[in-house]
Amino acid sequence: MAEITTQMVKELREATSAGILDCKKALAQAEGDFDKAVEYLREKGLSAAAKKADREANEGLIGTYVHPGSRMAGMVEVNCETDFVARTEQFQELARDLAMHVVAARPEYVSREDVPADVIEKEKAIFRAQLAETDRPAHIWDKIIEGKVDKWYGDICLLEQPFIKNPDQTVQALMMQSIGSLGENIRIRRFSRLELGGS
Amino acid sequence: MAEITTQMVKELREATSAGILDCKKALAQAEGDFDKAVEYLREKGLSAAAKKADREANEGLIGTYVHPGSRMAGMVEVNCETDFVARTEQFQELARDLAMHVVAARPEYVSREDVPADVIEKEKAIFRAQLAETDRPAHIWDKIIEGKVDKWYGDICLLEQPFIKNPDQTVQALMMQSIGSLGENIRIRRFSRLELGGS
Repeated sequence: MAEITTQMVKELREATSAGILDCKKALAQAEGDFDKAVEYLREKGLSAAAKKADREANEGLIGTYVHPGSRMAGMVEVNCETDFVARTEQFQELARDLAMHVVAARPEYVSREDVPADVIEKEKAIFRAQLAETDRPAHIWDKIIEGKVDKWYGDICLLEQPFIKNPDQTVQALMMQSIGSLGENIRIRRFSRLELGGS
Repeated sequence: MAEITTQMVKELREATSAGILDCKKALAQAEGDFDKAVEYLREKGLSAAAKKADREANEGLIGTYVHPGSRMAGMVEVNCETDFVARTEQFQELARDLAMHVVAARPEYVSREDVPADVIEKEKAIFRAQLAETDRPAHIWDKIIEGKVDKWYGDICLLEQPFIKNPDQTVQALMMQSIGSLGENIRIRRFSRLELGGS
C-alpha cells in the first residue's frame, strides 16, 4: 500500500477544501494518486472545490506568454466567477503560467472531451496496426489500446499534461488547487499557440 | 482627375521602390488610389517590392498584443526572409502593430483567398435576400452583390482593412511599404485573437 504523507494530505486539502480525515481516506483509496483522490472526494460530494467547479465562470482574463526570441507565443482564456478574483495577483500568475505551459507543452485540446471522434479513431487504428506487428493475443488488444489512448490523452490534452512548473502535478490538479485557494470556480476555456513556421 | 501630391508619390515610392515618373504615372492611372497604383506598378513589372513579394519568407516572429485589462489579446505570425530583418526595430514594431490591429479590428481571415466558398455563398444569399426587398431591377443584382461582397472583404480580411494606426492606408499597403523599406518579402501568415467570453 502506498504511503500517505502529511504533504500529500496538505496538498489535497488545498485543492479540494475537504476535511483532513476525508483527504486521508481518499488518498488511501486512490493509493496515493492525487487525481484519483480528487475524483473520489468529488464522487462522495466531499470536495468543496469540486462543487465549485460546477458553478458558472464568465469573468477572468487572457493569459499570454511570449517565449524569448518571439518565435513562439501562446494565449489562454482563463475564466473565474468575479472580476475581483480576476484582478488578484494569484489569478494573474495562474493565467500567465498556463500560457507559458501552452507554449512549452504544445497541447492540442483543453480536455479529452474536446478531442474529435475521428481523431480518436485514427489514433486507435495506429495502435491496432502496431499491435498487429506483435504476438500479443487479440483478446487483450482492446485493453492495451485503452491504456495507450489514455496515455495519449495525457500528451495532447492540456488538463491532463504534467504542469510545466511542477511536473508532479497535472494541470487539472493545479486548477483544482487554485479553485480551492481562490474560492471560485476556475476553468480554462480555450487556448491558442503560434510558432514560427509551425503548422 | 484626382490631384497627385508629392506626398502620395513619396509614399508609393517607399512602398514599391519604383521610379518617380513611374509612380506619378501609376497614381494618375489609378486616380490617386494607392492600392490600385501598386497593382498597376506590379502589373507593369515596375515595383521592386511586388517582385520581392514573390520570394520565400520563412523567418520572422510572432507579434503579440495584450489590451490593457487583459480581456483581449492577439498574436500574428509575420514572416520575412532573414533573421537579420526579423531582429530590426522596424520589423518588431510592425509585428506588434499588426497584433494590436488584430485585437482592435477583429479580422476573420488574412486575405480574401482564405475565405471559404460556403461562407461567401452564405453572405451572397443574405445580400440577395436584401435586394429582393427593394425595387432594384434583377439584371443589376449581380453587379450590386459583387460590390457588397467587395466591401464585406474589406471588413473581414486583415489585409484589406484600414490600418488601425493610419486608417488612410490598408494593411496591404502597410505591408508593401514595409517590403519597400526593409528590402525583403514580408507576409502575414496567420493570426489568432482571444477575447474574454468571445466566440
